[in-house]
Amino acid sequence: KRGKMAKSTQLIDNEVFRAYATYTGIVLLKMMLMSLITAYFRITKKAFVNPEDTASFGKGESAKKYLRTDPDVERVRRGHLNDLENIVPFVGIGLLYALSGPELSTALLHFRIFVGARILHTFAYLIPLPQPGRGLSWAVGYSVTFSMAYRVLKTVWLL
Amino acid sequence: KRGKMAKSTQLIDNEVFRAYATYTGIVLLKMMLMSLITAYFRITKKAFVNPEDTASFGKGESAKKYLRTDPDVERVRRGHLNDLENIVPFVGIGLLYALSGPELSTALLHFRIFVGARILHTFAYLIPLPQPGRGLSWAVGYSVTFSMAYRVLKTVWLL
Amino acid sequence: KRGKMAKSTQLIDNEVFRAYATYTGIVLLKMMLMSLITAYFRITKKAFVNPEDTASFGKGESAKKYLRTDPDVERVRRGHLNDLENIVPFVGIGLLYALSGPELSTALLHFRIFVGARILHTFAYLIPLPQPGRGLSWAVGYSVTFSMAYRVLKTVWLL
Repeated sequence: KRGKMAKSTQLIDNEVFRAYATYTGIVLLKMMLMSLITAYFRITKKAFVNPEDTASFGKGESAKKYLRTDPDVERVRRGHLNDLENIVPFVGIGLLYALSGPELSTALLHFRIFVGARILHTFAYLIPLPQPGRGLSWAVGYSVTFSMAYRVLKTVWLL
Repeated sequence: KRGKMAKSTQLIDNEVFRAYATYTGIVLLKMMLMSLITAYFRITKKAFVNPEDTASFGKGESAKKYLRTDPDVERVRRGHLNDLENIVPFVGIGLLYALSGPELSTALLHFRIFVGARILHTFAYLIPLPQPGRGLSWAVGYSVTFSMAYRVLKTVWLL
Repeated sequence: KRGKMAKSTQLIDNEVFRAYATYTGIVLLKMMLMSLITAYFRITKKAFVNPEDTASFGKGESAKKYLRTDPDVERVRRGHLNDLENIVPFVGIGLLYALSGPELSTALLHFRIFVGARILHTFAYLIPLPQPGRGLSWAVGYSVTFSMAYRVLKTVWLL
């Protein structure tokens, strides 16, 4: 039993892996927050997509009018999808990067910039900030993931 | 060669990791099933989105009428997207959680409740069940992922 | 310090894991490419979804006409979403599969076919190729992931 515990904590004892776990945890929680913001806008704007979600507003036509799209709800949903498109590659490539043995300082630089850029991206999308605010924050996160992928492929290449 | 094999099986010998792998495999297969259900409804309801998908129904106007949205197809697609939004954080945070050395019984509790909640969520979405059935099953899965993230961040925190 | 480095490079020294990392890196970069293709079509087709993205085209009505959907943009976006739906399970199940100790040749076969199929799928979607080109390439990738999931569950099963 003890032996198994020791094995299981090896990775988690590695500082780069701990940094990866911290930033991945934070950025996935940030992505999960988008669900709550969507729910908040659906309820306050009374804009739903499933008929069963409007049943508490009454039956028939009186409830049907709440089955509609709302610009604010759609905006949050686009931000959420953009998170999926960008955070999924970060989580996957970041794990391989953390296991490829980079310097802790270099790894921290990558993780911090990525997570900072994605938090900025969310603010830029939801406020919304004028362009190129959102575009730049997207590009910064994208570039960080690309940089990690380059290091991973250079280190592990086995086709 | 032997040494490498031994190394590669270390993680997989850990019971918490095996539990994680089992439940992650099941819930990702469940998510993949949504693609088949979407295809099934697209074909039985004759509701397609790409012109090339309707070519077998004839040319021109006779095929064009099958380029349409269908409520049942859209419902499955929403369930699929909701899976992506919730199962991606579970897979990422769950991996870090499994590596953070939790008790097997606690880990199993988390994994079982999450996968059970997501299976219920799919039934609640597709039947559909009256609310708050879908909402509650969503919230249970969300809370489990949040609980795992809390444990991960408490254990690994390195900013 | 030296000890930590040695630990962190264990997994990355495993050949199956290196193959997994290589193919996962490639297929995630391919998925990230979809963002650039979407941006390219949005700009060349002048078809945007956020009002702040059209501000450089002028104010009011003159910019509003660029807030529209374009068939080519929507096609790339569908390809991107299909990537998310299929590459996320590959990355998650593939990691567990790589850790389950398969033969290198078997693992390479799985990874190569999956990544080849997803690259074909993208071409089939964007050109577009007549069906069943896209359908078959989708099914091949799906089957590979299913085959890996079967091996994972058979190896680790702990419910």
